[in-house]
Amino acid sequence: MNAIASERKVHVPLGERAYDILIGPGLIARAGAEIASRLKGRKAAIVTDEHVAPLYLDVLVQSLEAAGIASATLVLPAGEKTKSFEHLMTVCDKVLEARIERNDYVIALGGGVIGDLTGFAAGIVRRGVRFVQVPTSLLSQVDSSVGGKTGINSRHGKNLIGVFHQPDLVLADTDVLNSLSAREFRAGYAEVAKYGLIDKPDFFAWLEANWQAVFAGGAARIEAIATSCQAKADVVVADERETGQRALLNLGHTFGHALEAATAYDSARLVHGEGVSIGMVLAHEFSARMNLASPDDARRVETHLKAVGLPTRMAEIPGALPPADVLMDAIAQDKKVKGGKLTFILTRGIGQSFVADDVPASEVLSFLKEKHPQ
Amino acid sequence: MNAIASERKVHVPLGERAYDILIGPGLIARAGAEIASRLKGRKAAIVTDEHVAPLYLDVLVQSLEAAGIASATLVLPAGEKTKSFEHLMTVCDKVLEARIERNDYVIALGGGVIGDLTGFAAGIVRRGVRFVQVPTSLLSQVDSSVGGKTGINSRHGKNLIGVFHQPDLVLADTDVLNSLSAREFRAGYAEVAKYGLIDKPDFFAWLEANWQAVFAGGAARIEAIATSCQAKADVVVADERETGQRALLNLGHTFGHALEAATAYDSARLVHGEGVSIGMVLAHEFSARMNLASPDDARRVETHLKAVGLPTRMAEIPGALPPADVLMDAIAQDKKVKGGKLTFILTRGIGQSFVADDVPASEVLSFLKEKHPQ
Ligand SMILES: NC(=O)c1ccc[n+]([C@@H]2O[C@H](COP(=O)([O-])OP(=O)(O)OC[C@H]3O[C@@H](n4cnc5c(N)ncnc54)[C@H](O)[C@@H]3O)[C@@H](O)[C@H]2O)c1
Ligand SMILES: NC(=O)c1ccc[n+]([C@@H]2O[C@H](COP(=O)([O-])OP(=O)(O)OC[C@H]3O[C@@H](n4cnc5c(N)ncnc54)[C@H](O)[C@@H]3O)[C@@H](O)[C@H]2O)c1
Ligand SMILES: [Zn+2]
Ligand SMILES: [Zn+2]
Repeated sequence: MNAIASERKVHVPLGERAYDILIGPGLIARAGAEIASRLKGRKAAIVTDEHVAPLYLDVLVQSLEAAGIASATLVLPAGEKTKSFEHLMTVCDKVLEARIERNDYVIALGGGVIGDLTGFAAGIVRRGVRFVQVPTSLLSQVDSSVGGKTGINSRHGKNLIGVFHQPDLVLADTDVLNSLSAREFRAGYAEVAKYGLIDKPDFFAWLEANWQAVFAGGAARIEAIATSCQAKADVVVADERETGQRALLNLGHTFGHALEAATAYDSARLVHGEGVSIGMVLAHEFSARMNLASPDDARRVETHLKAVGLPTRMAEIPGALPPADVLMDAIAQDKKVKGGKLTFILTRGIGQSFVADDVPASEVLSFLKEKHPQ
Repeated sequence: MNAIASERKVHVPLGERAYDILIGPGLIARAGAEIASRLKGRKAAIVTDEHVAPLYLDVLVQSLEAAGIASATLVLPAGEKTKSFEHLMTVCDKVLEARIERNDYVIALGGGVIGDLTGFAAGIVRRGVRFVQVPTSLLSQVDSSVGGKTGINSRHGKNLIGVFHQPDLVLADTDVLNSLSAREFRAGYAEVAKYGLIDKPDFFAWLEANWQAVFAGGAARIEAIATSCQAKADVVVADERETGQRALLNLGHTFGHALEAATAYDSARLVHGEGVSIGMVLAHEFSARMNLASPDDARRVETHLKAVGLPTRMAEIPGALPPADVLMDAIAQDKKVKGGKLTFILTRGIGQSFVADDVPASEVLSFLKEKHPQ
């Protein structure tokens, strides 16, 4: 295979769990060759969802076949509800039925839902079989497919059950993002912007100048995705099992999760990336209120996210939101309050985020009341 | 707490996953103190089965309470069928409901079934919470509670779904073995003898001389269990994720598993340790037939296992067994045949087992036909 000029590779150096992320056009059609040149097994079980299957499953199966890899396939319903025990059991059963052994692999073809569920199954069948991520949503390409966090939801909360199971290869085909809805693309873009806001001020400035090219596709899109994957990989390598710095990846997520809970995870009202968008603006505004950062930074963040079409204010969420103290309860549940203090990701300015573990819950509440008077 | 004179401790040095195994009388009544002195959390979820609960659950709960540890409890049906997805979900749900966080712990109080299931749940709730094993069967004290292998069964086979999740502490209360049925005690004893046969000829000789004292309880029993735990710990430390030498622990298990499958896992006909007993005799006889070991060793093994009351011959299994070629199919499924060759644990004599990866399947089949003519 000739290397494609515009293709990018990010290496994740995790010792014996090291792997590559390939980012570029046409990767699904070349998946068989890329996998066969790296991994030994010649059998695969592909898990995907009902939206993605009609678009890309055949291409993937044929590409594997051409490389001498036989595959079994499983198509699941699309949506967050698929991250359940019931579907986990279905996937495990399919993988065993396909007689996937330790050297063969399980392939996730889809967004973060399929990736999280399938990665979890790959982590527990035979106490771990090989796993290839073929992320098809922008969010999964820049975030969920990298780092090995897998899992399902419980009635007690999101992502509460799972394992760390690193993939052996990630193939991010940037062409497939063209079939993603504009809204899903924007939601994933919120996570791209997040990497700039965490610790890459130059990347954020580059996005401000080039976001239209990123949305249009081509080299700028590949560049943005590769930079995001590199950023995520750096954090994961520093803290594989999320005991410290990996928490920075939650910039904007504490407020965001509270809003997702407040809208009952109803994607008609709010999807994850939209919550993160509003949450990142709130985190910057709250940091300004705490005299940690300039209010100009919060305005700059908001201006950019607004420009790409993302919501930046709670008031933009359709339907009524619960009052500030109920939002505060959701935050306290997510984070745990110790002696009236919360751990929060705050910032000293664009690209200067940090983990603060002594944020007074009372300050957060009065800030929320100000932002969301009712 | 004063150390009890007759108590033994085995340390499992797995780096940041290192832990202690305490072996001795009255440990359930002292569990709270032992746990509180080692682990930070003050909340526990205890999982047990309907046979063990009426005997020991109250003692454990009170011991924890006295040490300032609050516990939630879950009692499941006894038996191998409990190692299922359905019960895994129930345990995960209970652990989340009890709000067990990373520093709190899940406690398995029971035999290998409860230990395997509960350890798996502890490995996946919040991607891993602390886990304490309180094994109550001899088999779980000398084998399943040590080493971190956890899991459930699938319709495709036993233990096919699970994770490696080491416990943080193992408390083997040797008094509780008094309520175990004689048959279950003997079945566990087969695994004790196994450690001698793998690589401890002196231990095997000691068992030959002292088995009655081991069965009676007291210091000899504690000694036998401690030696077994040390043996298992040594193998686990050398090969935590079972890529090589850990396979020695399967001495007698290839034949044993085939017999378990042939009797449809019907414990009225055969329990695991009984299959292992017959399997160890077969492994020694087969090794003699391959001119690797003296036939005297096989006779010595059989004499000892017979003396303690274990079955040593296929003909002792009640009901009809399928013909040799069906048993051979089960072996081939368990082990995978490559070019007509099998991987098998063979021996050069008592305490001289080794992993042979080139055993001709045809030899095994004709040996089985000889042993089980039909
Ligand atoms: N594991 C992690 O580290 C991590 C990180 C962030 C998010 N997540 C998880 O990721 C999930 C969200 O991921 P997501 O936003 O990709 O959701 P998703 O998988 O539900 O995908 C969103 C929608 O887009 C569709 N879709 C995906 N690719 C498409 C394509 N190329 N063309 C047309 N439609 C396509 C899907 O069918 C779905 O309807 C959440 O469950 C979240 O918890 C995990
Ligand atoms: N994880 C590992 O490394 C490993 C190793 C070997 C076996 N195993 C697993 O262990 C399981 C077998 O373990 P087991 O033999 O302990 O089975 P078990 O848990 O079913 O216990 C056997 C029976 O004894 C009862 N019992 C347990 N303790 C008792 C006590 N003190 N008094 C009275 N009754 C008691 C139980 O209720 C059950 O009815 C199998 O599922 C096997 O796969 C796992
Ligand atoms: Zn996110
Ligand atoms: Zn065994």
